[in-house]
Amino acid sequence: MSGTERLSREAIHDEIFAMGQKARAAGHSLANLGSAEKNGILRAMASELRSRGTAILSANAKDLEAGRGNGLSNAMLDRLRLDESRLEAMADGVEQVARLCDPVGDILDERERPNGIKIQQIRVPVGVIGIIFESRPNVTSDAAVLCLKSGNATILRGGSEAIHSNRAICDALQAGGEAEGLPPFSIQLVPFTDRESVKEMASMDRYLDLIIPRGGKGLIETVVSLARMPVIKHYDGICHVFVDEAADLEMARLIAVDAKTQKPGVCNALETLLVHEEVAGRLLPQIASSLVRRKVELRGCEQVEKILGEVARAATEEDWRTEYLDLILSIKVVASRDEAIKHINRYGSHHTDCIVTEDHKSAEKFLREVDSACTFHNLSTRFSDGEEFGFGAEIGISTDKIHARGPMALRELTSYQYRVRGNGQLKEAPN
Amino acid sequence: MSGTERLSREAIHDEIFAMGQKARAAGHSLANLGSAEKNGILRAMASELRSRGTAILSANAKDLEAGRGNGLSNAMLDRLRLDESRLEAMADGVEQVARLCDPVGDILDERERPNGIKIQQIRVPVGVIGIIFESRPNVTSDAAVLCLKSGNATILRGGSEAIHSNRAICDALQAGGEAEGLPPFSIQLVPFTDRESVKEMASMDRYLDLIIPRGGKGLIETVVSLARMPVIKHYDGICHVFVDEAADLEMARLIAVDAKTQKPGVCNALETLLVHEEVAGRLLPQIASSLVRRKVELRGCEQVEKILGEVARAATEEDWRTEYLDLILSIKVVASRDEAIKHINRYGSHHTDCIVTEDHKSAEKFLREVDSACTFHNLSTRFSDGEEFGFGAEIGISTDKIHARGPMALRELTSYQYRVRGNGQLKEAPN
Repeated sequence: MSGTERLSREAIHDEIFAMGQKARAAGHSLANLGSAEKNGILRAMASELRSRGTAILSANAKDLEAGRGNGLSNAMLDRLRLDESRLEAMADGVEQVARLCDPVGDILDERERPNGIKIQQIRVPVGVIGIIFESRPNVTSDAAVLCLKSGNATILRGGSEAIHSNRAICDALQAGGEAEGLPPFSIQLVPFTDRESVKEMASMDRYLDLIIPRGGKGLIETVVSLARMPVIKHYDGICHVFVDEAADLEMARLIAVDAKTQKPGVCNALETLLVHEEVAGRLLPQIASSLVRRKVELRGCEQVEKILGEVARAATEEDWRTEYLDLILSIKVVASRDEAIKHINRYGSHHTDCIVTEDHKSAEKFLREVDSACTFHNLSTRFSDGEEFGFGAEIGISTDKIHARGPMALRELTSYQYRVRGNGQLKEAPN
Repeated sequence: MSGTERLSREAIHDEIFAMGQKARAAGHSLANLGSAEKNGILRAMASELRSRGTAILSANAKDLEAGRGNGLSNAMLDRLRLDESRLEAMADGVEQVARLCDPVGDILDERERPNGIKIQQIRVPVGVIGIIFESRPNVTSDAAVLCLKSGNATILRGGSEAIHSNRAICDALQAGGEAEGLPPFSIQLVPFTDRESVKEMASMDRYLDLIIPRGGKGLIETVVSLARMPVIKHYDGICHVFVDEAADLEMARLIAVDAKTQKPGVCNALETLLVHEEVAGRLLPQIASSLVRRKVELRGCEQVEKILGEVARAATEEDWRTEYLDLILSIKVVASRDEAIKHINRYGSHHTDCIVTEDHKSAEKFLREVDSACTFHNLSTRFSDGEEFGFGAEIGISTDKIHARGPMALRELTSYQYRVRGNGQLKEAPN
């Protein structure tokens, strides 16, 4: 909880469960809205975000002030900060979602049985989705509108640092939407920010069909260990590039440099480079010089140290399991493509892994046998992203295998229902 | 644990995690088997089940003897019992699965981006699936072979009552399969049957991608509260038939009788009948007389009691939430289709619910607005079943909304992977 009040566990329980009940009712109404109605609601939300700009920024100023008082780092304050251009990007994002195709109502399968029963498998909303997230206030809007477009009600629980910003954004979305027919309580923000509130949400499988945690490993770990309902999570991105013996070495250098340095703090950035021993001697000095020029610290296996000398320090076992999210790269020389696949399946995070090679048979084996959400051939891992895949906005990149794997967009926020039509079929002859 | 030995928690932990590690390796090999290879393995398994028939039946005799000693009810002993015809049905089931289409490798989506990146979404196995089940030993075979056909390794944990039967069946499957190239440890049976073993499996998200509990509510509840990985469950089937004012009343009577009595102990049997007040007076006496003749106990709301007199006893609030799995039916008169929908969404278990009506507009509204895995128009709820839907065998009927909803067959035992091919694409201009 933020501020001075302290509510009892029971009061928190009661309030969150009451929110759940209202969200369930909202979800049933939302499921019946057509695409045009939902798009009208989304456009009204965008315009409300714009017209409440001053109020949202002054709520954000309160959070920033409190954050400075609580000694937040500059990086954290920057994540928390809204300004006119970030607010405009947020409103623009809502309008972009309005322009995406609505997946609800798609017929996934249709069949008629010999006894005349007609079965349709239809895409429907999931129902109510809980989003548990940390400091970035733009998640409030991004997540809520993707859920809404796919017909779901949301219960959002953000961090204490952004409570005023989140409240102002959530109010703008709900109020703007209601003017165009958004059911009440479609988008709700949990007023508590302590661990107890996560616990209550995690226990509320009666009202929450799915929880998506967005944030650090600690938060996700907590949600996973408590949740009674499905959780779609994204732990980390320990992405690999493997340079095969048959690689175009200049392409390999460019891909490695792009994947590591173009935006090192994101989940699809490169963390470990694997190089076939046949090409390591020629390639590594070139790559190292490009990377060192870009201030990347190199940590290598023994063979890498031999080739690069003091440019690289020794990598430990821990390095192969680390998502640096920083200008650090671990490098390992491998004896074969199969050793590379084995290393990736053992140490990777099943996010995105790439082979660089001109040998198509080798590439196909890698694409198939690496057990990751996205397997790439000859392109930067930075393309592992819902927008780059053409899905429009994404709500995250799942490293799970159930329901959603890889970039998660609107389709992954839906379920399905079988609608079956007969004309009096019985299992047993009537009497 | 069964028997006299008692292992420490640590020993159980170590053994189960070692099984997990082996299953993960087996899963990687299984993912690369083609359909023909898997079908050959399945046929060899069926023939091994047949040739080990005597051994399996004598293992089963041990379980039955122990069960009698432990005072199992006749119903439980019957569930546990194998005989030649049940064993033949089991082997035949394995051969049926060999004949089903293999979903692995299906291309779910394919797109080329303006920058030339080619994206394929391909169906792949989930990986390693944990099955936790109770007394019926045929689950060992049914579940393992469906998982295998879809390219998954399985770790099975059955109940103590069936430990000898499960062991014999599992050994036959693994040995029969290995002769045809089944990777070692593809099908493993946990040697422990206590709660500790469920706990260990539930914590093993590193090696288990999914858990499917099959059994009573208590078992499912335990798994749900402990599991760190996704669980696909089937709590119960509180199925409804709603007879609309525009129903063909004779069809309604036949459907209600069939859905309630054709096999009352299963999840897609009817539990609550809702009748529109406009037709209740005419319909209920007819339905009641058919049901009473078939020894069904009726429990009704006040209006039902008025119409049927002492044929029906008063239903309580609890009745609307009860899955009887028995010759008992609760009946409620409702004022409208919308009241019926509301009742079902509130008290039902989101399994299968049916409207009987000749009014197609009314039917469509019901099919859409009832929030259940399967919504039916004019047919018995008993058709809610993977085989009736044409999916071949089913591993269960999910009342969840994530990943699998309704009858779960081979497709629902798969995940997908994005395989992406480029020719050197970078996010940033090279230098």
